[in-house]
Formats: sequence, structure tokens, C-alpha cells
Amino acid sequence: MNRSFPPRLYLALIHHPVINKNGEVIASALTNLDLHDIARAVTTYGVKGFYVVTPLEDQQEMATRIISHWTKGVGARYNPIRKQALASIRIRGFLEEAVSEISRSEAAAVQTVATTARTTGPGLGYGQLRQRLETGRPHLLMLGTAWGLAPEVLEAADVILDPVRGATDYNHLSVRSAASIMLDRLLGPEDRQ
Amino acid sequence: MNRSFPPRLYLALIHHPVINKNGEVIASALTNLDLHDIARAVTTYGVKGFYVVTPLEDQQEMATRIISHWTKGVGARYNPIRKQALASIRIRGFLEEAVSEISRSEAAAVQTVATTARTTGPGLGYGQLRQRLETGRPHLLMLGTAWGLAPEVLEAADVILDPVRGATDYNHLSVRSAASIMLDRLLGPEDRQ
Repeated sequence: MNRSFPPRLYLALIHHPVINKNGEVIASALTNLDLHDIARAVTTYGVKGFYVVTPLEDQQEMATRIISHWTKGVGARYNPIRKQALASIRIRGFLEEAVSEISRSEAAAVQTVATTARTTGPGLGYGQLRQRLETGRPHLLMLGTAWGLAPEVLEAADVILDPVRGATDYNHLSVRSAASIMLDRLLGPEDRQ
Repeated sequence: MNRSFPPRLYLALIHHPVINKNGEVIASALTNLDLHDIARAVTTYGVKGFYVVTPLEDQQEMATRIISHWTKGVGARYNPIRKQALASIRIRGFLEEAVSEISRSEAAAVQTVATTARTTGPGLGYGQLRQRLETGRPHLLMLGTAWGLAPEVLEAADVILDPVRGATDYNHLSVRSAASIMLDRLLGPEDRQ
């Protein structure tokens, strides 16, 4: 590693505002394995915080129950490794709360990075964002559930990250896969070894 | 891309023989989202075939039902994109069936590549396997569910791939995340852009 500063990357998994299959703005339901998989990837890659954003109170309660099971309940004794990962999750009602919380704790305005599977014009490449992270400036990587982030989030973001391209025209990764690949490209070993 | 041959990479998700938390060899239960997430990643990266290996007949039937729902049933009309991905799955009882089937259809002995999250000695790096794939030789990437592939699979494999290292000492990715990151490192764009 040849970094000036440890990267200050945060991740937000957003359940509202996102779009459904028909392009309508909705609040999506929480998926248990999203929390587990992304928390484990976040911990593996040294992401500074993992925000789960949903305005629905019953969904916030469900997330709290899942996290408690693994951080304080039976799950914590059964699998302490999972405890470490799930302890990184912070549940918030709105994206703005995560943004202002990060900016406050980092004492610097966090740059918001929107992700999308659709090409929306010239975006920021992974190598470029990697370089920006190496300057030490805090960034928040925002991933949408359901059919992706609502247009208003893309428009309000400081930058839009290029879609993950594989080796074909098919670009329908799960949000769990996309988050994992993005973190590897942004924070993984530079030589991929 | 500067490849001599299109890569002939196959992937096997193995439910037996794998180990449990105590290191005992078991047959693990199928996880619905493993099939979905890995099928979508496999399709995105142009993997030639996705084998789901389980000797348990009820689990084979469950996998068949899940796949049929999305390739022939209501799911196929609801989400044709998912249909394309799940159609890549081949259910087999034993790893040996996948190996002999691939070798037969490729008319060349397939090289088996074991994966593990534990460092087991000098393994093959991602760049090295990428180069081997570019020679056109068929390879089968084997991923274990539960606590990972049984020692007998690691010992019998032609090569062992280096564990995915992130940016910390925590190396407990889900099999869905690990598969996605591995495919991106092996088949994704060389410049990560």
C-alpha cells in the first residue's frame, strides 16, 4: 500500500428513495442477507461505517432485532466473527442523517458517490475514485436496493460511479455482489494478488 | 481485452464435501440466494457453466423447483433477466460428474481450482490464474459453502487459489461475495475501470 491517508470510505445501503421495476419511487423491504453479506465485506475492506437507510419504523425495528441477535444474543456466542461484522451497522431513517453524521465526525464535508447499473453519461472510474480516497477526503458510497437509487439521489450526488462492467452485456448483479466488487476495486490490493 | 482465447472458466458451488464450524465433513443445505447471486455474477462475467453440487436428493429437487420457477414459471414472465441467469445452473450430485462433463465437452482435461479463506501455503495468485485462462485451457473454480471445502477437495485439486484478501485481517466474506470478487479479478476489465 502506498497511501497518503487511510481511506475514509463509508457505505450506505438505501431502501428509500429507490425505484421499483416500473421506475416508481418506493421504500423497499429489508433483506436479511444484505445486512450480513455487506457487513462482512465492509469489515473485510476496512470501510469506516455501514449505514442501512430506511424510513419505515417496522423495518428499522427488524434490522435492530437482526443485529442484536448477532451482537448481543445467542448468535454472538455461536459466531463471534459475525458479531464483529454486524456491529458496524448503523440504522438511519434518511440519507441526510448519514451524510451530516459523517461530515461531523470527520470534520469535513463528505463527498456522496452514487452507484447505478445504468450508464448515465460520463461517470467516475474506479481508479479515479481510488485516487480521490487516497487524498484522505471522506466519501460515502451509496447503493440502492430494489431496481436502484431514485433519480433524485443520482442528481443530488457529488459524483456518479461507473457501473460495474463484467465481461458481457448482462449487468444485473445483486446489490450484495455489486457492493463486494466495488469495495475490492476501491480498497482491495492494488495488484489483485 | 487482449486474449488469445475466450476464457473457459466454469464455477462449482459445492455443498458436499464441505466442513462445518467444528471441521467435520458435512453436506450443507442449499441457500436460495446463493443460486440467484452467483448465477447473476456468472452471467455477468461470461462463465461457461455454473454447477451446483449436492448429493442430497431433496436438495436437488429444491434447486430444480427454484430454477423452474424463474425459467419456466411465473418468475420467467415477471423477470426475464433473472431467467437468463438461472438457466446457466446445472445441478449435479458429485463434483466428479461436473469435472468429467466439462472435460468431455471441452475435449481437454479441466484444471480444478480450489478456493479457501485459509492460507494453506503458497497458492496461485489471481493474475497468474488470469494468465492461465488466457491460454484457453478449461478451468473449474470450486467454492465451498458452510465453513469451506473439505481438506480432501483441497488436496485433490490441481491448484489452490490464494484467499481473497481485503484491506484488514478479517477474511470472512460470504460465498456470494467471494465468488463475485473472484470473477471480477479473473474475468473483469483489466484496468478496473
